[in-house]
Amino acid sequence: MRYQLFYWPGIQGRGEYVRLALEQAGADYADVARDERGMAAMVKMMEAGGGTPPFAPPFLKAGRLVIGQTANILLYLGSRHGLAPKAEAGRLWVHQLQLTVADFVLEIHDTHHPLGPSLYYEDQRQPAKKRSAEFWNERVPKYLGYFERLSQEHGGFYLTGRRLTYVDLSLFQIVEGLRYAFPKRMTAFEREIPGLVALHDRVAIRPNIKAYLCSDRRIAFNEDGIFRHYKELDL
Amino acid sequence: MRYQLFYWPGIQGRGEYVRLALEQAGADYADVARDERGMAAMVKMMEAGGGTPPFAPPFLKAGRLVIGQTANILLYLGSRHGLAPKAEAGRLWVHQLQLTVADFVLEIHDTHHPLGPSLYYEDQRQPAKKRSAEFWNERVPKYLGYFERLSQEHGGFYLTGRRLTYVDLSLFQIVEGLRYAFPKRMTAFEREIPGLVALHDRVAIRPNIKAYLCSDRRIAFNEDGIFRHYKELDL
Repeated sequence: MRYQLFYWPGIQGRGEYVRLALEQAGADYADVARDERGMAAMVKMMEAGGGTPPFAPPFLKAGRLVIGQTANILLYLGSRHGLAPKAEAGRLWVHQLQLTVADFVLEIHDTHHPLGPSLYYEDQRQPAKKRSAEFWNERVPKYLGYFERLSQEHGGFYLTGRRLTYVDLSLFQIVEGLRYAFPKRMTAFEREIPGLVALHDRVAIRPNIKAYLCSDRRIAFNEDGIFRHYKELDL
Repeated sequence: MRYQLFYWPGIQGRGEYVRLALEQAGADYADVARDERGMAAMVKMMEAGGGTPPFAPPFLKAGRLVIGQTANILLYLGSRHGLAPKAEAGRLWVHQLQLTVADFVLEIHDTHHPLGPSLYYEDQRQPAKKRSAEFWNERVPKYLGYFERLSQEHGGFYLTGRRLTYVDLSLFQIVEGLRYAFPKRMTAFEREIPGLVALHDRVAIRPNIKAYLCSDRRIAFNEDGIFRHYKELDL
């Protein structure tokens, strides 16, 4: 079966967590909205009456199923492609971790959009400075400290043990993204999270991930995505 | 099996979505942290080494399982207590809707905490005014318009059809909460969402929910929770 991934073209965004899972799995998929016709199809699917219209991209078409919400898509893909444990306890645990990553991603987005997603960054620069400072003082240590502790407890291999899961791929992306958006702050912070940095490096050299990162399927970070580099926020 | 729910005492917060599901199911549960000893046990479980420590409350102890993240807990409870379809497609769809509710809940929280969760409301009043205005202009119509459309399409009964699911309970709470936090704005907006208001009313008269709402197990809304009533944000 060929999957169809629907996500905004031009940014990594939330779609990237799905792309990384599809790439690691070696799954056959089309990144549909990267051409104009696909983009029109995506909008049509969200507006269509009946069925299970997603609230927002990303969503995945898998045969007759249309699955929305990043963590929900990973829940589905994880069990099909060996990217999560099969047993209920492990499946729920990995999903729980992914939902915690999702919460963190929202807070990352809010560093440049504290007054809300509908206003331009340029209209909220001062609040963004305050929110970014608070983010690095309080939230990054709390979230990444939690994941660091888990990575240490499991012998410093992957987050939940010796097998890679989709949450490892997402944490790779978190480290990559924070390095792009906040290079100064992240450089200073990385000494606090040696386990996560090692995990990041372990993911980066997986053959499928390495090939993906070098391909033009990987969109470059930019200032329309979740991880944005604004010098004034990276003090 | 007696469930143990762990959540901050004194607020409805995210724990409320779980409480509503447990109450509707008539499940046997203890709301552990509502006394001091339970509160200490909750903190200990988050700090404990090994196992599957949750990042934050709410979490549910179900036998040997410790399940964190509100939507994940509902995923687990839904399949056990007839509050979600058994088949995969329906189960994923209801979970997807719940994750969209979770995103909305975070945006509701941000109306009074745009600069981040670690600062006091009093230190972010002006940004909170801007964020609240943007929330009501852009985000409420988008989110509630989406759920309204779904409720209409399914004949105006429950959100996904004739059977109640956990997402209906959560939408009941959203309507209740917005009425508490923003009584003026919500009164004006309710004419846009007749289907959701009817759904809210249908949930409110379910015998188990009605009994719960009248009991002292239901904590009153207050200004420490997610839905806070600040007059200056409700213009």
